[in-house]
Amino acid sequence: MRAPAPSMRIGSMERHFHEQLQELKATLTEMASMVEEAISKAVDSLIERNKALAQEVIAGDEAINNLEIAVDEQCLKLLALHQPMAGDLRFITSAIKINNDLERMGDHAVNIAERALLLSEQEQLKPLIDIPRMAVLAQEMVRESIESFVVGDVQKARDICVRDDEVDNLDDQVFRELLTYMVEDPRTISRALHLIIISKNLERIADLSTNIAEEVIFIYQAHTIKHHIEEKGGGDVRSRS
Amino acid sequence: MRAPAPSMRIGSMERHFHEQLQELKATLTEMASMVEEAISKAVDSLIERNKALAQEVIAGDEAINNLEIAVDEQCLKLLALHQPMAGDLRFITSAIKINNDLERMGDHAVNIAERALLLSEQEQLKPLIDIPRMAVLAQEMVRESIESFVVGDVQKARDICVRDDEVDNLDDQVFRELLTYMVEDPRTISRALHLIIISKNLERIADLSTNIAEEVIFIYQAHTIKHHIEEKGGGDVRSRS
Repeated sequence: MRAPAPSMRIGSMERHFHEQLQELKATLTEMASMVEEAISKAVDSLIERNKALAQEVIAGDEAINNLEIAVDEQCLKLLALHQPMAGDLRFITSAIKINNDLERMGDHAVNIAERALLLSEQEQLKPLIDIPRMAVLAQEMVRESIESFVVGDVQKARDICVRDDEVDNLDDQVFRELLTYMVEDPRTISRALHLIIISKNLERIADLSTNIAEEVIFIYQAHTIKHHIEEKGGGDVRSRS
Repeated sequence: MRAPAPSMRIGSMERHFHEQLQELKATLTEMASMVEEAISKAVDSLIERNKALAQEVIAGDEAINNLEIAVDEQCLKLLALHQPMAGDLRFITSAIKINNDLERMGDHAVNIAERALLLSEQEQLKPLIDIPRMAVLAQEMVRESIESFVVGDVQKARDICVRDDEVDNLDDQVFRELLTYMVEDPRTISRALHLIIISKNLERIADLSTNIAEEVIFIYQAHTIKHHIEEKGGGDVRSRS
């Protein structure tokens, strides 16, 4: 049996590579929307004191974990079969990290749902205003960070980094407000602590999205610099606080 | 100019590959010991109420962040120049994830140091017993998880997963004890909250080490299974809570 002519073989390998890369992007996008949904449901279960919804989030985490393993395998396959170079290689190694980040966000949603379950057993401390706002922001940041990664939209990635401050400020506000509750009435302490940690979980999700956005800026800027050497500056966006 | 004979070229490429792989292992080991030191100093700064030491931890984070970038570059170089297969490929993609985890642990040490600074301005709440014990355990877990990864020691990795429960129990104990302080005397609330979050940071470091250990079990077990197909079982250690 003879091997196909080199040009034909490369053409088909390349087509295959691009199909698998599209699959990887689709899986990551799917995973991001599952994480988004988990955050939304977890915070809804808290607001509505809905145990069934909280349990759905906890049960749903396995599907996210399974997708994490699937993404890792897709990345390994792309690396092993196609030995990509330069931009494609960096995209795939970034996908490995981003995959890990998405899985962690799923864990944070579970943590929120677990605390929502505990809080549903007790009297409501206060109507929630800032936490639902944080949840909406965090969900947007998850979706947009993955979108910016998949399509290589550096401007969108930059916007995400700005939005992180908004979430941090809300987290501070939640903390300060709950502190006053605790000081005024020690019976609120345990409930207030759950809410503080829920707020911290949302802040971590926003942080992880920001890490993804920084990665996007880093890889696409590196790529740009490589291709247009005259275009310089922008600083080291990779340095982390 | 003629290319060298294939056998000679491959021999030298392979030697080069193994040297670069050793370098990667050395950088990860160095990074782990920097993280270990950051944890130790952060908790010492808390115990000794030593602001200079806390500031050292905060300033030292940049060096850890720089090593993260260096490890990423080493991994990219190994993938681009040597196109490794099977076990080596999986080792390198795991290194990308583990690198990310180590950098996060550095961030947790900084968070502890920042809270140690704030606490040093206020009267001491209580002598610390469990937090220093958690710190010692967390440091061991960081060191041993990286050792188990670098040498492929699955047994050591398994031991780390067991030790994670010990840290979780200490975290619960710290939480319950500080809760009683807060309930009894609202003036302690703000200090107690800092200590609770410090404890949570140590618990996260232990968790991240456990993730590394799980990765070690996963990659070396996959490797073993691939090579000795009769050896089965062990369950899916990859599934995450």
